[in-house]
Amino acid sequence: MNPILAVGSVALDSVETRDGKSSDALGGSASYFSLAASRLADIKLVGVVGEDFPQKHREMFDKAGIELSGLETATGKTFRWAGSYTEDFNAAQTLDTQLNVFADFAPKLSDDHKNCPILFLGNIDPELQMEVLSQMKGPKLVAADTMNFWIDSKKPAVKELLGRVDILFVNEQEARSLAGVDSNVGAAKKLLEWGPSVVVVKKGEHGALVATGDKIFPFPAFPKGTIADPTGAGDCFGGGFMGALASNPDIRDHANLKRATVYGTVMASFNVESFSTERIETLTRDELDERAREYVSLLSVNLEAVAA
Amino acid sequence: MNPILAVGSVALDSVETRDGKSSDALGGSASYFSLAASRLADIKLVGVVGEDFPQKHREMFDKAGIELSGLETATGKTFRWAGSYTEDFNAAQTLDTQLNVFADFAPKLSDDHKNCPILFLGNIDPELQMEVLSQMKGPKLVAADTMNFWIDSKKPAVKELLGRVDILFVNEQEARSLAGVDSNVGAAKKLLEWGPSVVVVKKGEHGALVATGDKIFPFPAFPKGTIADPTGAGDCFGGGFMGALASNPDIRDHANLKRATVYGTVMASFNVESFSTERIETLTRDELDERAREYVSLLSVNLEAVAA
Repeated sequence: MNPILAVGSVALDSVETRDGKSSDALGGSASYFSLAASRLADIKLVGVVGEDFPQKHREMFDKAGIELSGLETATGKTFRWAGSYTEDFNAAQTLDTQLNVFADFAPKLSDDHKNCPILFLGNIDPELQMEVLSQMKGPKLVAADTMNFWIDSKKPAVKELLGRVDILFVNEQEARSLAGVDSNVGAAKKLLEWGPSVVVVKKGEHGALVATGDKIFPFPAFPKGTIADPTGAGDCFGGGFMGALASNPDIRDHANLKRATVYGTVMASFNVESFSTERIETLTRDELDERAREYVSLLSVNLEAVAA
Repeated sequence: MNPILAVGSVALDSVETRDGKSSDALGGSASYFSLAASRLADIKLVGVVGEDFPQKHREMFDKAGIELSGLETATGKTFRWAGSYTEDFNAAQTLDTQLNVFADFAPKLSDDHKNCPILFLGNIDPELQMEVLSQMKGPKLVAADTMNFWIDSKKPAVKELLGRVDILFVNEQEARSLAGVDSNVGAAKKLLEWGPSVVVVKKGEHGALVATGDKIFPFPAFPKGTIADPTGAGDCFGGGFMGALASNPDIRDHANLKRATVYGTVMASFNVESFSTERIETLTRDELDERAREYVSLLSVNLEAVAA
């Protein structure tokens, strides 16, 4: 099993939906990604929190088997984000962002971390993503996420980053904006030209497109009637996807990529069942595998009877 | 093979997209549905056109094997619709509607038509849909489509119709509006309570949800980089779906339903490649089967290597 180094934000989120709210609950891209991926692989988390970060979250990460030597505690307060989904479950409305200690996040990797075979760069400043990548010693597989804020403010750096990663995770609006192309398939093809071998376009409740140089695999979301809180679903998708690749990081193998997409999809479907990281904290490998089999079964088709 | 009676509009459409436009080209729900379904089954079309309806379209229907004894020519002009997709490929903006002879459409079925085993009711007035259904002599399978205009203006009639059909085709905005539920899965479940055994929620570029009493099958669209004209994609989906069921109309058989969904999905993907009905007019059964196999292959996943 290849351990995954996950670099990104660890935050305290306050989220409001039509059905309820959370206050200063565990959030951040690296938290969601790491918890999700930890169900399938060994994870080492690199991030920064403030002195107010609750010990219970640190203990919960530890219990999940997540290696925390890279989770620095800095003087000051933990990154806080507040958002609302009362209008639309597919688009968070940001109510407040307080970067706090995250504003000065500049990780210096340990030798153990530099030698990790798989790297996941959460959606932090693309220049910082490249700086972290430069510290790595020949990883087998590098994946990155990005977001509209960086696409709008540092597009050249995002584009440069793409030349150095194997897998890009990006949501559909961001993919179109980054590529300057008004279709998901067209945007994915354009982004592939900039460097990655695989571009994963995340479409929220509509699933994901996984684009490679010669194929585009469309996968629907696992059907859910009710959603408690969509925060972190994209990072959980990434965690499930990368966790599934840890045992075999060969992304030229389409069967392998499709299995990863299934685990990403299913992981995201669990995450939206509760606020914050609640559901993926308690998620077992058996539950994950069971839903993965159910999902694959929903999509499996035998054409014979009609084609006859 | 069970012949399908298709009742709906036959129109002349003028459509504008960012890439081009068509003028007085063949359109209408029954045209798209019948041409699509004719690749898989025997179709009898019931509709009305004016004296200005081009003979070439009638000949093209005839060449496609579509039985036209129910295509009445009335005194006056053919139904005309003009729309634009320059803002958004997922939502047509109606520029002009001239019902013309379609305003008085009130089909009287022949004995042959009354005995058709499968009935498809295109998105006409729900009271007219029920009137046609009342003329039928014990069809094995009844499917209907509806649209926002009827949901807004005649919701009780639409609801009554649902109590008398086996399959409802509806797009996602319409499903939510009709059910009064703000999620596709939730809306589909509510609509199932009103009568149909199967509710197909069409999501355009994001595919479809096929809901039965005990399962919800999510299927993505076939990935397309460019779209020439999305008009009729939903009706082609219905035509492919129903055409695939003609050889075996047992919709309790999930394998059968999934095969139908694949043919609906693939048929829609061909239709958007050209304006009007151009692409499905020339579509061969071999092309259809080949893309169906490709689509099924894209979605087929082997979980073993990761689950091990």
